[in-house]
Amino acid sequence: MASGKEVLERVQWRITVADGSSEVLVPATGLATMAWVRIKGILWGLGLKVWFFLKRACVIGANDPRKVIHCLKVGLALALVSLFYFIKPLYDGVGGNSIWALMTVVLVFETTVGATVYKCINRVFATFLAGFLAVGVHWVAGQSGETLEPYVVGASVFLLASAATFSRLIPSVKSLFDYGAMVFILTFSFVVVSGYRVDKLFELANNRISTIVIGTSLCILVITFVCPIWSGQELHSLIVRNMDKLADSLDGCVTQYFNQSGECTNSMEETGKNLQGYKCVLSSKASEESMANFARWEPPHGKFNFRYPWKQYLKIGSSMRSCAYCIEALNSCINSENQAAKLIKKHVSTGCLKLSSSSSNAIRELAEIVKTMKKSSTIDLLVGEMNSAVQELQNDLKSLPGLWNRSTVPENKTLEATPAVPLMEMIPVMTLASILIEISGQIEAIVDAVEELANRAAFGINNKCKQSEMNEKTEGTVKALQSV
Amino acid sequence: MASGKEVLERVQWRITVADGSSEVLVPATGLATMAWVRIKGILWGLGLKVWFFLKRACVIGANDPRKVIHCLKVGLALALVSLFYFIKPLYDGVGGNSIWALMTVVLVFETTVGATVYKCINRVFATFLAGFLAVGVHWVAGQSGETLEPYVVGASVFLLASAATFSRLIPSVKSLFDYGAMVFILTFSFVVVSGYRVDKLFELANNRISTIVIGTSLCILVITFVCPIWSGQELHSLIVRNMDKLADSLDGCVTQYFNQSGECTNSMEETGKNLQGYKCVLSSKASEESMANFARWEPPHGKFNFRYPWKQYLKIGSSMRSCAYCIEALNSCINSENQAAKLIKKHVSTGCLKLSSSSSNAIRELAEIVKTMKKSSTIDLLVGEMNSAVQELQNDLKSLPGLWNRSTVPENKTLEATPAVPLMEMIPVMTLASILIEISGQIEAIVDAVEELANRAAFGINNKCKQSEMNEKTEGTVKALQSV
Repeated sequence: MASGKEVLERVQWRITVADGSSEVLVPATGLATMAWVRIKGILWGLGLKVWFFLKRACVIGANDPRKVIHCLKVGLALALVSLFYFIKPLYDGVGGNSIWALMTVVLVFETTVGATVYKCINRVFATFLAGFLAVGVHWVAGQSGETLEPYVVGASVFLLASAATFSRLIPSVKSLFDYGAMVFILTFSFVVVSGYRVDKLFELANNRISTIVIGTSLCILVITFVCPIWSGQELHSLIVRNMDKLADSLDGCVTQYFNQSGECTNSMEETGKNLQGYKCVLSSKASEESMANFARWEPPHGKFNFRYPWKQYLKIGSSMRSCAYCIEALNSCINSENQAAKLIKKHVSTGCLKLSSSSSNAIRELAEIVKTMKKSSTIDLLVGEMNSAVQELQNDLKSLPGLWNRSTVPENKTLEATPAVPLMEMIPVMTLASILIEISGQIEAIVDAVEELANRAAFGINNKCKQSEMNEKTEGTVKALQSV
Repeated sequence: MASGKEVLERVQWRITVADGSSEVLVPATGLATMAWVRIKGILWGLGLKVWFFLKRACVIGANDPRKVIHCLKVGLALALVSLFYFIKPLYDGVGGNSIWALMTVVLVFETTVGATVYKCINRVFATFLAGFLAVGVHWVAGQSGETLEPYVVGASVFLLASAATFSRLIPSVKSLFDYGAMVFILTFSFVVVSGYRVDKLFELANNRISTIVIGTSLCILVITFVCPIWSGQELHSLIVRNMDKLADSLDGCVTQYFNQSGECTNSMEETGKNLQGYKCVLSSKASEESMANFARWEPPHGKFNFRYPWKQYLKIGSSMRSCAYCIEALNSCINSENQAAKLIKKHVSTGCLKLSSSSSNAIRELAEIVKTMKKSSTIDLLVGEMNSAVQELQNDLKSLPGLWNRSTVPENKTLEATPAVPLMEMIPVMTLASILIEISGQIEAIVDAVEELANRAAFGINNKCKQSEMNEKTEGTVKALQSV
């Protein structure tokens, strides 16, 4: 480091000399140039940082153009609300209180329609309620005489703010009225406290409410009519996407395990991404919950009616997560150090691959059902196939010891001495198989959850399999298979 | 239902008669009483609901008194800030702008010190930055002539609001400056737009900043000195608590599986709660992340220095979650339909129980290390024990076929005909054992993460095992065991 610095200084010094400046000034110029170099370095670093930041922002914007649209919508709503300042009659109409409309837009505007509507409704009702209460408290305070007034006002602020804050900590209240409680505290303390000073209390309350109503209606108009993003639609797509990811991961893991030396059609990176897809399912609980929460506030839109059973998506999500936990266990079993003997691996590979492919086909069909919102009779067929694959795999496992006795133990050796090693080599494969069987059970739970959704949301029948006879036939097959 | 209603009406009617009112009025009174009964029913229902709600609120408050304290703190801070209205010199000092101080308290006051400090710092800096920018834009707009002024102002609001909103969607910015970006938009649009109308722009900006500084300092004082709740301390306790839960779940699952008919010292409910403890680990990712995020903003407190490696807790949490996924798989393997033969279960039970108890002991010791913030040499010993238990369990598994050959196959039968059934009955036990072995691997990852934390946070040495020789000896044992 030190020698590098020295070299830098010497180079700087030479350049200074080449410039033709006095040689007596060398130390001072050295300092100045050093400082300049430092500053240039810092500026350059800063510039680079800003450049990288902008580049990343561009990538984020290009990956999800809806984010950019959302930003433009916020700008639009704010520019519209600024009109109140520019247009004189409007400005005079609300008595210079347009700040509240502006504030409402900034605080209330969210990415999705549901979240915005939730905040708007909460804001309007909380403001009304708090306004009325504050006027009441102010009247009581006025009756209690001038000395007592500040105490009454102070005590009411303390008590109601504490109570409203407490209500925000109760889960059922929080999910519906969290923002409302905050606005309540704000409006109440503001009106009741300034009521003590400002005499035109009613005018103040009235102005505030009218500007808030203006702000919220503007927000709802912009969010609903300019490229709307619906929480419900987002939740719906998230569930469908996660199902596909689950299917890809399951398929990918098992295929990779059994075909480690086989040909690979996708690039390594893409395969790795597919394999890790189930992790999205593990981590999407919070977003599912908030989306389902906001979707309740949305008007009917697209294919979703009023009172669409959004909560059912949470059940589907939760059973998908149970399945994803098993895939995680499958993954760690695949990556563990104990490797299975090739012979045994080969023996069960057909069964495992068949089960994993039929399982992932069932998940993909479920994704299709949710996506198209049409019931499908194919799913029963696929579940039947999955169950028969489970049966076949179990049969393969049962025949394992026979295989081992026949092929690895020479005829002339005693049986007691040799069996230990092959059994140890069987364990990873058997664990894998039993986790796969467990996963098929989890998939049936997803099937049940999706069927409940289909019933509660009254999904239609898919056109591609109209024949109801086929449906019955499949059910027969499934029952026959399940009774095996 | 209908007959019940009839009875109710008849009873009401008789009472009316007993009151001595005219019998001609019976139908009218009937309607009136019916309405009264309905209203009474609704009121009674409402009252009951409110009563249940209050009861639940009391339970929540009693379970976590800190929530109640938090509410009282909010009330206190608001009452203090109201003083600005009641005390004339203070009120005149900030020119009636105390509304901003009030608003600051409501918007900024959070449950933990870290979250509050984060919001305060964001608010102050964003207000400064936005104020300066707005004054600049206002000056530019003023220079551009009266016709162009509204356009310049409108365009600047649109552009800066869009840009600031976009920055909130970039993860790295969001985690540090989300609230600041919102305040920036609010302040900027407010100052630049009202600058067009209000001529005393500098005074407005100055007043707003001073009231906000007053509000934030008040918040920081109250949150830090009145029963403070620290995000860092919460995160620390959460991790310790989750480790204990993980240990209890692991121990409980395995013990319950092998001692299903054995004596049960705890009540059923408590046992069930213990077994499900690992689910808390699965679901605490989001809260861990937000706590670690806020902990960065906190000053040194308690045992935590400045620049304490909070991010390391996220690593520990993530490796704990990997372990919890395995416990979930263990659980579904235990609850699956295929039951293991008693003989085989008995054969591996000692090994499995030993491994699970040594694993959970290791986790408990890790919890102790994190809790006391003292390094412990016992952990190496416990990891060594765990590894030797893994080895023993593997030996047990190896000897399984021997056992089965000796005890279940009669001498005079052929070997080819019988092995299928016992192998199928072995699978659940072998899966369980291999998941247990997998879990011990995950625990070593947690040990590594905790050791990294201990090194980075410079934990002290625990007094109870001062002898450094013992440490070395243990390391030797561990190495010897690992090399087996």
